[in-house]
Amino acid sequence: MPVRIGVIGVGVMGGEHARLLAHEVSGSEVVAVFDVDPQRAGQVAAATGARSHDDPMVLVKDEQVDAVVVASSDPTHEQFVLAALAAAKPVLCEKPLAPDVAGCGRILDAEVELGRRLVSVGFMRRYDQGYRALKDVLDGGRVGRAVMLHCTHRNASIAPGLDSSALISGSAVHEIDIARWLLDEELTAVTVHTPRRGAGATGTQDPLFLVFESASGVLVDVEVFGNAGYGYEVRAELVADHGTVSLDSPPPTALRSDGGVARVVPADWRGRFAEAYRRELQDWVASVEAGTLPGTASAWDGYVATEVAQVGIRALETGQRQTLELREKPALYA
Amino acid sequence: MPVRIGVIGVGVMGGEHARLLAHEVSGSEVVAVFDVDPQRAGQVAAATGARSHDDPMVLVKDEQVDAVVVASSDPTHEQFVLAALAAAKPVLCEKPLAPDVAGCGRILDAEVELGRRLVSVGFMRRYDQGYRALKDVLDGGRVGRAVMLHCTHRNASIAPGLDSSALISGSAVHEIDIARWLLDEELTAVTVHTPRRGAGATGTQDPLFLVFESASGVLVDVEVFGNAGYGYEVRAELVADHGTVSLDSPPPTALRSDGGVARVVPADWRGRFAEAYRRELQDWVASVEAGTLPGTASAWDGYVATEVAQVGIRALETGQRQTLELREKPALYA
Amino acid sequence: MPVRIGVIGVGVMGGEHARLLAHEVSGSEVVAVFDVDPQRAGQVAAATGARSHDDPMVLVKDEQVDAVVVASSDPTHEQFVLAALAAAKPVLCEKPLAPDVAGCGRILDAEVELGRRLVSVGFMRRYDQGYRALKDVLDGGRVGRAVMLHCTHRNASIAPGLDSSALISGSAVHEIDIARWLLDEELTAVTVHTPRRGAGATGTQDPLFLVFESASGVLVDVEVFGNAGYGYEVRAELVADHGTVSLDSPPPTALRSDGGVARVVPADWRGRFAEAYRRELQDWVASVEAGTLPGTASAWDGYVATEVAQVGIRALETGQRQTLELREKPALYA
Amino acid sequence: MPVRIGVIGVGVMGGEHARLLAHEVSGSEVVAVFDVDPQRAGQVAAATGARSHDDPMVLVKDEQVDAVVVASSDPTHEQFVLAALAAAKPVLCEKPLAPDVAGCGRILDAEVELGRRLVSVGFMRRYDQGYRALKDVLDGGRVGRAVMLHCTHRNASIAPGLDSSALISGSAVHEIDIARWLLDEELTAVTVHTPRRGAGATGTQDPLFLVFESASGVLVDVEVFGNAGYGYEVRAELVADHGTVSLDSPPPTALRSDGGVARVVPADWRGRFAEAYRRELQDWVASVEAGTLPGTASAWDGYVATEVAQVGIRALETGQRQTLELREKPALYA
Repeated sequence: MPVRIGVIGVGVMGGEHARLLAHEVSGSEVVAVFDVDPQRAGQVAAATGARSHDDPMVLVKDEQVDAVVVASSDPTHEQFVLAALAAAKPVLCEKPLAPDVAGCGRILDAEVELGRRLVSVGFMRRYDQGYRALKDVLDGGRVGRAVMLHCTHRNASIAPGLDSSALISGSAVHEIDIARWLLDEELTAVTVHTPRRGAGATGTQDPLFLVFESASGVLVDVEVFGNAGYGYEVRAELVADHGTVSLDSPPPTALRSDGGVARVVPADWRGRFAEAYRRELQDWVASVEAGTLPGTASAWDGYVATEVAQVGIRALETGQRQTLELREKPALYA
Repeated sequence: MPVRIGVIGVGVMGGEHARLLAHEVSGSEVVAVFDVDPQRAGQVAAATGARSHDDPMVLVKDEQVDAVVVASSDPTHEQFVLAALAAAKPVLCEKPLAPDVAGCGRILDAEVELGRRLVSVGFMRRYDQGYRALKDVLDGGRVGRAVMLHCTHRNASIAPGLDSSALISGSAVHEIDIARWLLDEELTAVTVHTPRRGAGATGTQDPLFLVFESASGVLVDVEVFGNAGYGYEVRAELVADHGTVSLDSPPPTALRSDGGVARVVPADWRGRFAEAYRRELQDWVASVEAGTLPGTASAWDGYVATEVAQVGIRALETGQRQTLELREKPALYA
Repeated sequence: MPVRIGVIGVGVMGGEHARLLAHEVSGSEVVAVFDVDPQRAGQVAAATGARSHDDPMVLVKDEQVDAVVVASSDPTHEQFVLAALAAAKPVLCEKPLAPDVAGCGRILDAEVELGRRLVSVGFMRRYDQGYRALKDVLDGGRVGRAVMLHCTHRNASIAPGLDSSALISGSAVHEIDIARWLLDEELTAVTVHTPRRGAGATGTQDPLFLVFESASGVLVDVEVFGNAGYGYEVRAELVADHGTVSLDSPPPTALRSDGGVARVVPADWRGRFAEAYRRELQDWVASVEAGTLPGTASAWDGYVATEVAQVGIRALETGQRQTLELREKPALYA
Repeated sequence: MPVRIGVIGVGVMGGEHARLLAHEVSGSEVVAVFDVDPQRAGQVAAATGARSHDDPMVLVKDEQVDAVVVASSDPTHEQFVLAALAAAKPVLCEKPLAPDVAGCGRILDAEVELGRRLVSVGFMRRYDQGYRALKDVLDGGRVGRAVMLHCTHRNASIAPGLDSSALISGSAVHEIDIARWLLDEELTAVTVHTPRRGAGATGTQDPLFLVFESASGVLVDVEVFGNAGYGYEVRAELVADHGTVSLDSPPPTALRSDGGVARVVPADWRGRFAEAYRRELQDWVASVEAGTLPGTASAWDGYVATEVAQVGIRALETGQRQTLELREKPALYA
């Protein structure tokens, strides 16, 4: 029997999740969708064969719904995840788990109280073939221990209203999660350097250059450039004792024309991580079906990502290196 | 309701198809499998939740089976495809459709007689993101019309018993199909050049260098090297009026170690085309469900591939350029 | 004491040679120049501190001239090289040594008669760092013996008047020489395939696709495209028993802009082979000074290049594979 | 008449300079050499046709010597440069101009006093084709103004005795100079981050991660890794308003073997910057001959490099961001 899924929030992200779950993922069907825009909800419902709900809380409790995907606006994540936990249903929540540490804490408390891990956070890079290959080389011991991780995260442009803190909590938070996953340890401090503003920066500090320190002393530097102009690009180079592994994910073809040989840079994250999203959903659905733990980021990972991002914002605002202290890690996430 | 699929032949290729259809493709389930090795059939049946049949002809007619995948040994393809046509069921047959032109002809006749297109041939490269990108550039007019297509097709090694004709009918046949698909026209002549044998060639002429001519005069040259030693690699460069597009599908990461910066070359076709196989099956299942035509190669494409490969073998054996004449194309494939 | 050089022909090529010999090569000075255009000769003379001659034959015999560079129009090469031999002076002649086999033969005869090797032919690719690296890998035995050599030779555009034979004698002749040098053996046969014409081809067959066979059976295929449109590009891939070496000479930087990451393709051969020309001249000057043999192509190499190119033109004109027979190799070139 | 050059210090670096000046640079000859090791001096003298001196101060004053190259041990640079200034002879001094700011200051004072620029400092990267291309793109305005510059500087290994400050004054000093040259402005502050030590680090902090700030606010980050293990590599990416330019200087060939496609990373700086050294020397010799200013780094550039490196060392030692104040720039260097 397919896993019956309800999707809360079917904008760009949630709509694509619904499409994948209905048409590209094995073992799932979309039975219910909700969106603050009822028309959009109706369209996605029609395209996926789902029913459109007008109350997300009812959707979560619906007996026809086995598991929930949360892709609504950031501030609403907490309540839906808590509702899913209350209904004892698996939930895959887009990042952030919650925008504030307190909200993440309440989710952790609820899940620990329940005693079962039901919450996944949508840090899809963990399913990217490139990051997997990078981790395989590191874990295989071929280049020794990690020493540094250089990261680049560029968007062609971001919404004009976004301020610098959004570059950390919305963009660099992906590097925060992937660095923890790659290195298999926590980040403990962060310094933010602020270069001159790029021409595309609209009234905010853009780009940022963040330097994180891990528990074992690995330095993780991250360029986050929201208005890089030329396209969307995520790159990394892991520097280790005896060698390095770099991730650049070149597209499969090169074009020779007009005096140059060129490869396309994608316009945004959708093309770049389309396959990672599908793999993430497939793994999650299979694990829900089998009653096992998926390879997704956990509620603990979601909490830490928010915590580190908040400390990064403090480092930006104060201009000072900030250290961070995590709450005690519950045994549930060992 | 999922499409219920029967798989005939569950060796390396058919077994992977069964796994994908059961666990990675949306809308399908594997309900029946057959293999000449009953133990292997049993294992795949257990892993996919299917029933193991002991008669493939019964499997094709089974009312529980909506559609059939044929991945058995080459000489057996024809009978199973004809049986599927007789049962009016969609069938996806691994290449070759049939090893000989006469067999392909009988399938064409049967499908034309039936008056509906039910046969797909598993030329999975049509679903590779790289070839798609290459075709998009060509079709978009950005570099003008095609003039030449340089192709490289290398295996680390092939089975010792294979002779040179197998390099054409088993390997270069992929380039034959993809060239027709990219250029959207037929190949009309072929010359085979034979270089000295590589050290890995075991009693046969390996590599081969084939030069095809298309109806409009495009030259398609193909290096087929069965024992290239270092890995599996498929590359192409399309040369057009004003530029070229090259396909090399680099892996996402590069390793710096021991005095070099390197990218992995896959050991065989499975890694290289894993995603193409999944997309092919997904498209086929969706089209079966919707009752529409998939983007797969048709019985006509399967027939032409075998015809061109056979003429290539004749060119190899005679040392002379050979021209070819196709049978008239039935209106069903217009 | 510097080697005093006279340069005959100071157009684009000879003018650059004069500049290099005067300002970038150690141990040489340009003392005399001649050109059919006296004004051009005067300008180059002024820029290099040389004297402008009005008779090239007098220049060759001039006691102030130790060695001669010939970069005049192709049909005049022979007479100047013969004059240099008559004067027993080292001469570096731009390719072709002579446009016809008979002319090359007369030079061979004269040099053999003299009994000393004084003639160099300007196949500068032998000094390109990329081809050197390629040859080093092959000679080092790392990939086994050569099996095939795939070559690409494209110009952005060529002079409208040039016909197809010039693509062979003027362009592919570089691949003829470099293949002989890389493989250290002679070419013995050639077939020419003619694709449809590119849009840039003005009244001639362009591109051509040549397939040479070497004495040991290595296949050397060459795409020569005179009006490739997008730039000047020379590439090669040597396929050997256990691996391949490819030459693409990427420029040192990559530009990310406008949705792509790109490397520049040079507009013509000058940028691509500037360093090879300098190294060739430096090696030649040093050998003249030391009285040793330089690493340049010899008169024998120049003769063979013309011979093979002529047979290639015959293959183009007849549409048939042509074999070739070289004259006996004089002991002087052993 | 060739420029007659005396070389002080003919170890690895000075010996190569002598070789280039004698055999690869137009317009120069080496007439005198000195080394603390008389045997080494004798060998280089023999190979270049020079005389071996036993007193470097006499060498500088020797009437046969038109210009001086200083490649002796760092602490001796100052005295030889001052002697050359006293003798009013052009001098090309390897970096550092002097290891301490005071020494650099005395050279500046002497040159200003003399009123003519005679001092060049051997920051050879300014002559690297890659850095030139990078600067051309920036200066051409194609990508807007610079915002960040990411630099990587790795050696396979460094001498065991070297401490961390040598990573700044000996290695990162190249990035200090090239950043000033590329950006055409001064650096004003520096922070040093210290990751865990790599396995190759012998009793010292290696690698270092430095973050410089320029006057206009460009961030320049530099990874300096003395014992990176796998080879010598210098890379950079200039991030600008609308795009980036990255420098990686790939070698001309790629090797396919053993499951990978690889390009060689040079073992040390000699291979990587061989051509830059030659160009630097050629430009310097030509300018000496013509009595014009070369494109080399000036005494002012040498002073600033030492000043910034010293402040970097202070930042490393204190763990604090350090700002820096340069002395007033004499009009001579405007």
